[in-house]
Order: sequence, then C-alpha cells, then structure tokens
Amino acid sequence: MNLKIAVLSGDGIGPEVILQAKKALYAIGVIYDHEFVFEDALIGAVAIDKTGSALPEQTLNLCLNTDAVLFGAIGDPKYDNNPDAKVRPEQGLLRLRKELGLFANIRPIKPYAALLDASPLKKEIIEGADFTIFRELTGGSYFGEKKLNESGTVASDLCEYSEEEITRIAHLAFQSAQNRRKKVTMVDKANVLETSRLWRRVVKTVSESYPEVALDFLFVDNAAMQIILNPRQFDVILTENLFGDILSDEASVITGSIGLLASASLGTTNALFEPIHGSYPQAKGKNIANPVACILSAAMLLEHFGLHEEAKKIYDGVEIAIGYGVVTTDLNPDSKYGTNEIGEFISNFI
Amino acid sequence: MNLKIAVLSGDGIGPEVILQAKKALYAIGVIYDHEFVFEDALIGAVAIDKTGSALPEQTLNLCLNTDAVLFGAIGDPKYDNNPDAKVRPEQGLLRLRKELGLFANIRPIKPYAALLDASPLKKEIIEGADFTIFRELTGGSYFGEKKLNESGTVASDLCEYSEEEITRIAHLAFQSAQNRRKKVTMVDKANVLETSRLWRRVVKTVSESYPEVALDFLFVDNAAMQIILNPRQFDVILTENLFGDILSDEASVITGSIGLLASASLGTTNALFEPIHGSYPQAKGKNIANPVACILSAAMLLEHFGLHEEAKKIYDGVEIAIGYGVVTTDLNPDSKYGTNEIGEFISNFI
Ligand SMILES: CC(C)[C@H](C(=O)O)[C@@H](O)C(=O)O
Ligand SMILES: CC(C)[C@H](C(=O)O)[C@@H](O)C(=O)O
Repeated sequence: MNLKIAVLSGDGIGPEVILQAKKALYAIGVIYDHEFVFEDALIGAVAIDKTGSALPEQTLNLCLNTDAVLFGAIGDPKYDNNPDAKVRPEQGLLRLRKELGLFANIRPIKPYAALLDASPLKKEIIEGADFTIFRELTGGSYFGEKKLNESGTVASDLCEYSEEEITRIAHLAFQSAQNRRKKVTMVDKANVLETSRLWRRVVKTVSESYPEVALDFLFVDNAAMQIILNPRQFDVILTENLFGDILSDEASVITGSIGLLASASLGTTNALFEPIHGSYPQAKGKNIANPVACILSAAMLLEHFGLHEEAKKIYDGVEIAIGYGVVTTDLNPDSKYGTNEIGEFISNFI
Repeated sequence: MNLKIAVLSGDGIGPEVILQAKKALYAIGVIYDHEFVFEDALIGAVAIDKTGSALPEQTLNLCLNTDAVLFGAIGDPKYDNNPDAKVRPEQGLLRLRKELGLFANIRPIKPYAALLDASPLKKEIIEGADFTIFRELTGGSYFGEKKLNESGTVASDLCEYSEEEITRIAHLAFQSAQNRRKKVTMVDKANVLETSRLWRRVVKTVSESYPEVALDFLFVDNAAMQIILNPRQFDVILTENLFGDILSDEASVITGSIGLLASASLGTTNALFEPIHGSYPQAKGKNIANPVACILSAAMLLEHFGLHEEAKKIYDGVEIAIGYGVVTTDLNPDSKYGTNEIGEFISNFI
C-alpha cells in the first residue's frame, strides 16, 4: 500500500514522540512492503513563531490532500497565561479539525495487564475495564460564537448542536458497539442543557436502527464519578465535545498514564491520529516523554486503512515493551528508559 | 439562638435523609438551648405533582424570608427520560438558587481515616487529601439563554459570565484559602473558551489583594485527571458552574461515597445547605440511603451562623459512627445499618 501521511509534530514533546511513531511506521513499511511517504508541516506555537499563524495555509492544504495526518501535540504556556493573546496555538488544531471535518474522536481505554498496579485506582476496580469514548469533535462550545463586550467585562461561549451533527457520530458509536459488547452510554446534562436534550432525542432515534445494542444515559457529573467507581460498566461512551475532552483525560488514570492513550479523529474523507496527551512543555527535549500514545496512534492509522495485521504488530510490540518494563518514568519512576529507547525497542520488535 | 429553617425535602431519598439531619439539629437545639423552627415546603417532582410548578411561589417566599434553607434532593427519572417535558424538577432548584442569589457553592472533600480503604483509589493516593471546591452557582450555561429552533433540529445553550459574577466568588475562594493552606487552583478551559479567559483575567486581578495566597491554573481536562492522580496537591479549587458540578461529583470518589459530601450555597443574604448527591430514586423508602451528607450539611448550616462548637459535635458524631462501622451499604456492603439507625446513632451521640 502507498500512503501519504502529513506529519504535524507541533509543540513541546510533539516532535520527540512523533519521531518514535515514524520509526514504527518505517519498520512496518519495510517488513510488509508498504510505502509510507511522510511530509512534515508546521502547526501550533512553532507555526505562530515562524509564520504568524497557528495553521498556515500550506499545512492545511497538505492535510486536505493527503491520506492521513499524524499529529503530535499542541500548546505553549506563554499563551495559556496570556488571556489577551490574539493568536493561540490551539486555534490551529481546532481549525484543522473543522476544515478536515473530523467530527468523531475515538479514544480507546484499556489497561495493560502489566500495568494494573500503575494506576492510582485499585487493581480490582480497573481489571477488565475496556471501553471506547466517542467524542464529537467539531461542534459544541469549541466552535460556537464567542463574545467579549467592548469593556471586556462580559464574555460568552455558545454551545450549539444540530440533529445532523449528532446523528453522524451516533451512528459511528452504535456501529462500534455492535462489534463490541453492544452497549452505548450517552453522557449529557439533559436535566439542565437544551443541547443535551436534543442529543437524547436524536440518539434515541438513531438507536432504533441498532436493536441489538443497549442504550443508557448518564448525567455528566455522575459519569465522571462512575468512570472511577466502576469502569467495567462501560462499553462505548458517546458524548459531546467538551464532556468528551474532560472524561477522556479523566479516564486515562485507568491505564496508569495519559502517555499511553491514542486517538483517531475521523471525518467523511479525512482522518487524523494523535495522542490524547498535550505538549507537556516541561518534558521537552529531555528524552522522558512517553512515546507509546503516539506510536499507538500510528497503529490506529494502520487499522483505519485496513492494515490490521500491521497494526497488531505495533500493539504487540507495545505490550511486550510494557511487559518487560521498558517504560518511561511516568509509569516507573526508577526506569532507565527514555523516549528514544522505547521507540527503538518497539520498532526493533516489529 | 433562634433560627428559622426552611426544609425542602424534595424527591427520592430527600425526605429520608432530611429526617436524620433534623434529628441531629433537634439534639443540638436541646443541648445548647437553641431554638430551630423548621418549616417544610415543596420543591421538585413532588411539587410538580401537587402544584404543577417545580418551585411553588409559597416555597420561594418561605425561603426568601427565612434564616437558612435545608435541602434534600431533586430529580425523577420520569423527567430525565422525557426530553420533551415542559416542566422539570431541576428547574425548581435552579430557580431557587437564582432567586436567593446563591452564587457560591462550597464543597469540602476530605476522606475519613476509617474509610481510607473504602475508596476505589489507593490509600496512599488519598491519604492527607483535603480540599474545598468553590463552584460558581448562578451563572454559566445553567442560566444562559437556551434555544431550540421550531423544527426541533438545532439547539443551543449560552454560557455567559460577567466580571462581577467572577469577582464575588473569587474573593470567597481566596478568603477561604487564607485560612487554609493558602493555595487557589482555578480550573477552566482558557485555551478554548472566551468565558474562561475572562475568568483568568478577573481571578488574577482579585488575587492581587491576597499576596500570601498562591494562584495556579489548570485546564479542566487536566484537572479531572489530577484530582485522581494526586488529590493532595489541591487546597481550594475555584471554577465555574458546570465544571464545578462535574469535578465535585468526581472528587467524591476520594471519600469512598458521594453519600458523605455536604455543601453550602451562599449568597449575600441567603444560604442553603444540601448534600451533593442526587435523589437516588432506586433507594427511595428502603432505609438504605446514606444520611451523612445531609447531616453534615446541617453542620455546615450551624457553622454558617457561627455555631462552631455545635457543628463540631456533629462532625465528631459522624466520625465516631464511621469509626465504629455504623455506615450504610454504600460504604460497607455487609453493613446491617440503615439510614435511620445512622441518624439515631449520631443524634444520640450529640
Ligand atoms: C489542546 C486542546 C484544544 C484539545 C481539546 O480540548 O480538544 C486537547 O485537550 C484535546 O483533547 O485534544
Ligand atoms: C440536579 C442538578 C441540576 C444539580 C446541578 O447540576 O447543579 C446537581 O447535580 C448538583 O450538583 O447540585
């Protein structure tokens, strides 16, 4: 297979973890005789520094005309602590998601057997947990109208959803549940929000096409609690943009480190793969960032193109690395392995 | 002291847990020679059933003309699963919060020594955790304009905040931190939301009046993770309405049960005290609901009126009950104690 992959390393630890994911893909390419052509492009704070824009047109055009995007991380504290900044790195990622129509962000959560003790949660709570979060990615308050009055004393964000936006991701969630344990839990705040009530109505309607899938509802406050109390109860979680953002970071504690969690962002014609962790600027350049989330994102990319055997090679490599204790210090403070060593180990395994 | 207390039992387990809180207050009244006059009023689903309104005018008037409100719980599944309901129980509570101007909801989180093993989190993670969440309660998307277009295909919720709304709760949070470990963590999503950026600006300005209090910022996705990874890092968490709703339910896992968590909702002239748990309709009438959150809410009420010794009696009573294993089945599945027995134990201790 021939795949053209846009590589957007971004900020902070982005470039380091991307490098390890590329190593894994190179190894797969050689062994399975695929040609992966990587093309690098700027995004985020580094793009602002060099071009003034968080998503230069060149990057956007590349992404629109490529088979897939592999994404590192975005964000820089110099913008976070400056509420008056006009341009911010995150705008680059948000605009990219919107322009590529990546409406579904898929985040699988499953602890590794060798890491059952690495979680702040008790082993008996997380053992057997295995669920996937379907987070809507191009709607809600991320993209609604934002206002600040002239005197700078009143601000607002509009959270808006249409039937169509809800329907398309709901179908993906139900289809996934059909191939899993056949349960969709929709998370909302329908006792307060109008958008949540629309979500409930639409999701109920979609569910009628999947009679073998059970559907239940949880309020987001309760869901935030249930994910910790009893993560095994979940199969597929379906939710809107901001709730999905919060719940998936929270759910990362089940695996022991957010540095292990990959995601796929899918649209009708485009696809982007990225670790769910951020740019972690304090770790930049220190060879301590966990590359596994990014490597697993590359595996999700392969799966997306039907390369299941190849993806499995990567999953196995990661599992073996973890099994041998070849992990970064987020998982074992005494570990002597860094970003680079783990990437090497996994690509050598392949 | 003479206190007139409006008692709003509400739905589900509300009446049962309120009864136990009243017992504790009666006991305090007798021993310390205070006169607590309770007046019951309707709210929530029970109020809808009887009057058609979730907050009858009579209830509102009573609450406006009383020293404090003791609140049980609200919510009924028959409304949750009906997105088309015109009147819903939660509207009663939301309107009450608004009319009484209860802009600050204060939720203390601290595990009991005897319950360190009851949490899904490891003991070494939660030991020593002790923080308070200051949740803004009368703004944000709870109260912003809600829209549904005529064809019912597009819905929206407006999240709006003003400088003034942020300033007043920020002062309360900083004042609380001054009497604690002198740290405020503000939680927002300033990399995406305009309202969050306003929050950051205003909270920074307020912080200048409290030079001895440290201020830091966390994005809400990261905060949802940090509360589980390392709860000891927090002293006072300050956040907007919906984030506070989510994070405080989540944080309840630290204590082992949401049935232990009390809250105070304060305004300039009014005050309301309520457990953070919901109406838990499945448990209604079974004598299995944990009354501790409601009893502790009564203790927070006493503290609010400067009755610290009296409040301490209740705190001690709860601690002793828990120490002796006099707890409901949410904390010990083999327990033989019910709602009523625990209420008796604590009021007898007083
Ligand atoms: C960087 C930020 C804008 C982004 C988001 O909130 O979507 C990130 O947290 C994520 O989850 O991908
Ligand atoms: C019942 C509901 C409207 C309420 C809220 O979301 O504020 C509850 O969850 C709470 O936290 O007090």
